[in-house]
Parts: sequence; C-alpha cells; structure tokens
Amino acid sequence: MDTVAPAPALTAALEALRHRHPLVQCLTNTVVQQITADVLLAAGAAPAMVDHPEEAPVFAAVADGVLVNTGTIAPAQAEAMRAAATAAREAGTPWVLDPVAVGSLPVRTPLAHDLAERGPSAIRGNASEIAALAGQGAGGRGVDATDDSLTVLEAARDLSQRTSAVVAVSGPRDVIVSPGRTTVLTSGHELMPLVIGTGCSLGAVVAAALGAAHAQEVDDHDAVLAAHALLGAAGIVAGRTASGPGSFAVAWIDAIHGLRPAEVAQLVQVEES
Amino acid sequence: MDTVAPAPALTAALEALRHRHPLVQCLTNTVVQQITADVLLAAGAAPAMVDHPEEAPVFAAVADGVLVNTGTIAPAQAEAMRAAATAAREAGTPWVLDPVAVGSLPVRTPLAHDLAERGPSAIRGNASEIAALAGQGAGGRGVDATDDSLTVLEAARDLSQRTSAVVAVSGPRDVIVSPGRTTVLTSGHELMPLVIGTGCSLGAVVAAALGAAHAQEVDDHDAVLAAHALLGAAGIVAGRTASGPGSFAVAWIDAIHGLRPAEVAQLVQVEES
Amino acid sequence: MDTVAPAPALTAALEALRHRHPLVQCLTNTVVQQITADVLLAAGAAPAMVDHPEEAPVFAAVADGVLVNTGTIAPAQAEAMRAAATAAREAGTPWVLDPVAVGSLPVRTPLAHDLAERGPSAIRGNASEIAALAGQGAGGRGVDATDDSLTVLEAARDLSQRTSAVVAVSGPRDVIVSPGRTTVLTSGHELMPLVIGTGCSLGAVVAAALGAAHAQEVDDHDAVLAAHALLGAAGIVAGRTASGPGSFAVAWIDAIHGLRPAEVAQLVQVEES
Repeated sequence: MDTVAPAPALTAALEALRHRHPLVQCLTNTVVQQITADVLLAAGAAPAMVDHPEEAPVFAAVADGVLVNTGTIAPAQAEAMRAAATAAREAGTPWVLDPVAVGSLPVRTPLAHDLAERGPSAIRGNASEIAALAGQGAGGRGVDATDDSLTVLEAARDLSQRTSAVVAVSGPRDVIVSPGRTTVLTSGHELMPLVIGTGCSLGAVVAAALGAAHAQEVDDHDAVLAAHALLGAAGIVAGRTASGPGSFAVAWIDAIHGLRPAEVAQLVQVEES
Repeated sequence: MDTVAPAPALTAALEALRHRHPLVQCLTNTVVQQITADVLLAAGAAPAMVDHPEEAPVFAAVADGVLVNTGTIAPAQAEAMRAAATAAREAGTPWVLDPVAVGSLPVRTPLAHDLAERGPSAIRGNASEIAALAGQGAGGRGVDATDDSLTVLEAARDLSQRTSAVVAVSGPRDVIVSPGRTTVLTSGHELMPLVIGTGCSLGAVVAAALGAAHAQEVDDHDAVLAAHALLGAAGIVAGRTASGPGSFAVAWIDAIHGLRPAEVAQLVQVEES
Repeated sequence: MDTVAPAPALTAALEALRHRHPLVQCLTNTVVQQITADVLLAAGAAPAMVDHPEEAPVFAAVADGVLVNTGTIAPAQAEAMRAAATAAREAGTPWVLDPVAVGSLPVRTPLAHDLAERGPSAIRGNASEIAALAGQGAGGRGVDATDDSLTVLEAARDLSQRTSAVVAVSGPRDVIVSPGRTTVLTSGHELMPLVIGTGCSLGAVVAAALGAAHAQEVDDHDAVLAAHALLGAAGIVAGRTASGPGSFAVAWIDAIHGLRPAEVAQLVQVEES
C-alpha cells in the first residue's frame, strides 16, 4: 500500500455533505438514537427516526439516505427494517446496513443476512460483525471490536463482491473496500470506543454522505471514506482536550460541527491500494 | 404589535414552575427521552416516562401534567397516547400535544388529528406541523422548521379556536396564540436547532408549566409563554460560551437550572397583541 | 454503627471491576439506555442492550452480569425480562433487579414482584421502591427518592432475608443490606439526582461489579458496595467543578473513568454494622 495525500475526491465528498443537508432516515437501536441524531445535525444532515412498519417504507422513498442498524430489534421494528430497505432500493435511495452484534444471536443474525441481500449501498461494522456477515466467525461480544480491521480484509472483500456494497470495517484503523479498491484510514482516539454510539453514528453519517454524494456524482467509496474521515478527524481534535469519555463526547460533537473539509483531510492518514 | 416589558405574569409563571416541582408524565419519542428528562429536572420538574397502555391512563390521572409527542409511535405507545390523553382530560390534568412530523405520514397524521380532538391544553410544534394539523400544508421534513412561525399565524389561530388549546409555534421567533391573544417571543440561539430534542423538551416543559400554573391560578397562556421563555433564555446564555452544538447542549442544561425568573424576563423579548 | 476506614475488600472489588471488563446485558428503560452504556464503558465494563424475548435468555447465559430495570416496559420487553432473569439464574450469571416505580402501577408492580422471586443477586432502588417491593408502602412518584434510605432499613432487611439478595437503597446515604451485614455509604452530590439515569446506571454498574466479583471470589456485598462507592465518589469529584446538572453529568462520566480504586476509597465514607 502507498500512503497518499488525501485525494481531492475526499474533500469533494465532505463539501457535498456540508452543503446538501441530506435528510437521513434512521431505523436504529434505542440506545444510540440521541447521539446519532446529534451527530447527524453536527455533520450538516437532518435526522428523522421514522421506524413504524407502515411509515418506514413511505419515508425511505423520499429520504436522501437510510440507515438500518440491528442493535435493538423490537418485532415491529424488524418488519420496518425489511420494508424500508426494499423501498429504499426501489426508489434509488442509498441505504446502509449496520449489522450490530450479528453472529450467534438467533433473531438479528438471520435478519442481518436477509437485509444484506436487499441491496445496501454500504455495510459498516466492526471486524467480528463483518466476518460473521461474510460467513466467517461467530461474531463478537455485542458492539466490541474484537479484531483488528485488517485481519478480516478478505472477508470484507468477499462481502463486497457478493453484495456490491462498499464494506467498511471500523477500528483504530478503518478499512473500506469496494470491488477493485481498498482504503485504510488512520484517525480517531483511544477514548472514542468508550463513548456509546460513536460507531452507530458513523453508520448514519455514511448514509448522509451517500445521500449527498448521489446528488453530486461523488463516488460511493469516496462518500463512505468521507464519513469515516470526518468522525475520525473530530476524534483526533476531541482527544486533545478531553479529560475522559464525558468531555470527549462533547468536544467530538463540537469538532464534527466545526471542522472544515480541508482540515479533515489534513488530520487523517489515508492509504490506498 | 407593541414590544412590551415582560409582564409580571411571566415571572409569576416561572416562579410557579420553580417552586411547585410538577410531576410530568411523558409519552414521547425514544430519541429524545433522555434530554427531555434532563431538561425537566433542570427546570425544577420531575419526569416520569410511563407509556404502557395499561399504566398510562392511571398515571395521567395523578400527574401534574402530561406530554404526548408523536415522534416515534410503536403500536402499543399509540394506544397509550390515546388513553392518557382521555384520562388526563377527565381528571383535569393539563396535557400537551406535540404533533411531530404530522403531515403526510400515514400513521401519525390521523393519530395526531385524533389526539387534537381529545382536549389538549396546549399544542406545540414547528410551523409546518401546526399548518398541517390546522389542515393547511402537508408538513415538513421530520422535525425541521421549514417556515417562519409568523407565516402560519392564521393557521395557529384557527387551530386554537377549534380546539380551545393554547397553540405555540416554535422557531427563531416563537408565536403563542390563544383565543383573543397573540404573543411573539424572541430568544434562543442559532445552535439550538442543532441539538436534538430542544423542541421536544420544550413540549415537556410546557406541560410542567401548565401543571404548576393550575396549582397557582396562573393563566395557561402565561404558563406556555414561561416555558418558552425559560428554554429560550437559557439558549441565549448557552450561546455565549458554546464552541459548537455539544458544548451548547451542556451549557443550556446548566442555564435552565440556574436562571432566576427575573433573569429570564430580562433576557427575552416579548411582543403582545 | 462504627465509622470505619474503607475495607481492603472495597478496593479489591473495584480492582476486579477495572480489570475484568465484565460484559453486562441491560434490559432497561429506553430513557436511560445511552447514559447507562456510557457509565458502564467509563467504569471499565462492556454494555450490551440485548432485550428481544428470543435473544435475551441466550445472551444472559454468556454475559458476566445482567440488569433488569422496569422503568419502561413494552410488552415484548417484559417477556424478555422474565426469560433473561430465569436464564441468568440457571447459568449462574449474577443479575440485578431495579424495580423502577414499583408500587401502585398495575403492570410493573406484579412484574417486579414476579422478578424478585427469580433469584436476583442484588436489588437496587430508592426508599419508596424498596418499601413497596418489601410489601410496605405504595411506592413514590416515579423515580423520586421520597424517603431517607435509613427509614426503610427494616423493609430492606426483610426483602434481603426473603430473596437472599443483597438489597441496596439509594439516596444521599446509600444503605446496603445482606443477611447479617448492613453498610451505610455517604457520597455523591446534590446535583446527582438532577441528572436522569444516575440511579439506573448504578444498577448496571452493580451488575458489572458482581460479574467481576464472581470471577475473582470477591464477596457480593462488597461488589455492590464498590459500585455505589465508584459512582458516588465520582459525584463528589464532579460536584467540585460543575456549574449545573449539564456540566455535572460530563464531569461525572470523566471521573468514573479516571478515578483509581484507592482514590474512591478515600473519597467516600463507609459505616459498617
């Protein structure tokens, strides 16, 4: 791999996110709904948590992007997830699958596999989740990242090939894979995994960046990278002043709101291959 | 309209809120439950999120105020909302309707119209929501405020006339309408709409202020104004030190807790007509 | 009662919590899920909010500790609570019952009594909740602590005797009771009850401390005490710099993360009898 200066494509994708104010529908777990909405607002997007089974597909057809996150799954919400994914696909709305804790749990595991076949634009998870969804490994302990992202590179490539989705593996280094392209992003801070919802919020911002990208002919891979770079760069900034995970979370939201695209590109390290 | 010095009635309503510690039942969306509870506690009220269909009407009869917010509507919660609204009305408990995202969505729209007929003491929303509930316009993009509050003044007056509720339209300027009286409040800060739940929390504080008012013979219109003034004044204070929406949210909660009624009255601008 | 220097057992229980990274399953109310997860992460534990009725018992058998909190009870979640409690008991996983607002409400009251018979390792609540669960008194106003903890000492002892659980009553002074032992802990700060979820998070950290204790042969009573001491000591630290409940919450999370076991033991006051 070569370390490269962040491409103009990254900056363009960040500019699109800032200026398009994409409307993002989130069908996500109840634990992280508040921070997810706050992160979307800070990033320049508009959140809408429409997850009723009758309303979700209606809204998915008009939203700019949709997130489906399997972190908590009340029976009605699982039905809404399937309907929203299909409606998004049919309407050409980009949608993101975040298969939280997929692996051995008996309800979400078949649900996530079913959703993966409904044409997500991107799939985002930690190493154990991506491995499990690719059919390798049994998943981790809830939202833990139990493996280094690069250890599941082949699984991510297989999953991307099979689903045609951009596949992103989160960790201290994020790995973003699409057919023919692999990007490794180094950013963030050690306090970031101690704030609940930083990963789940990232899935929502991926949906926002994809929604903005579709309106401006930015590549999907660059949009996924832009979302990871923005939240990771904000983590670097927040880590400079944080006294612990409480003050880190506050400074992280501030930085997501305040960072300019060129600053993001300077803060992160990108390797392409 | 005349710009007037905030009336002693505003200060009296704020004093009532601070000293009565009203118990406020919230049937509200899962996105904003935490910040809603934190704002109620900071304002001097006690929150209780009792939203089970069998428990909600029992509690509504003993609470000091009730909030019904249609932001997320699991099937059982919609049933609980109807039961709580009716029970509150029958028990003389003031209750507030916040018709989030009413307009074209197929479940919440008829639900909100049904609730509006069950005798809310106040209805709070953004311009597009109030227009939609009044039968004008198709609603906005989720929780967005797409219109200036004053553009829907006639819709607000119609809705107030029809339901006998105090109707409050939130925006950079809040418009509060009851039969024969219109108040325009200028307060807040541009970062306030970037924190999820500032509007939804306002609905809860309206219920708290109405609960406190009923115990002290404060007018309902003044109570609704007091709730808006407290949260808007706290927004002004928070905006002075905030570095972004994260630190704004923290400072806003601190200011809601710390501001004295006389300080609130000095910070905001009130026009009566 | 004698005021005693905190026992080495307290420090040992805190060390266990810090070093074992227990995986804690939370079936808890939707209001406090975010802060509960953040507090668990800050304390060194890993949260997992698995509350689907089919998944909950599977996960309870592999988790290190389980929290069951009755603050909000969607029908499916109540079923999941019963299944998780039974599965935890059968697998030897310590589990904690937090009977929020038990007393006169018609669904949660019989649910909490049923759960109390399923062998919780610990029961944590405020004075009115413990009194109601012990069969004395009708409960309080939601999550309010309406009574001084020591006023329900006999009820707590009865409940501990009947269920064999360690019973913890939260308030300005926490009272922790097990057969033959009573501990009174003084810590915390007056702003602590103004942040939603400080009590509910404590229930989760009790589950974490019990999970860590079981792996290291620390006594259950000492583990429950350690959880209370950590969160109370962090409250003392946060109170030194807080300007209100917003900044208190941030500083509290930072302190939960940063405090060393020996610092915790120095900050709190412990009386044994």
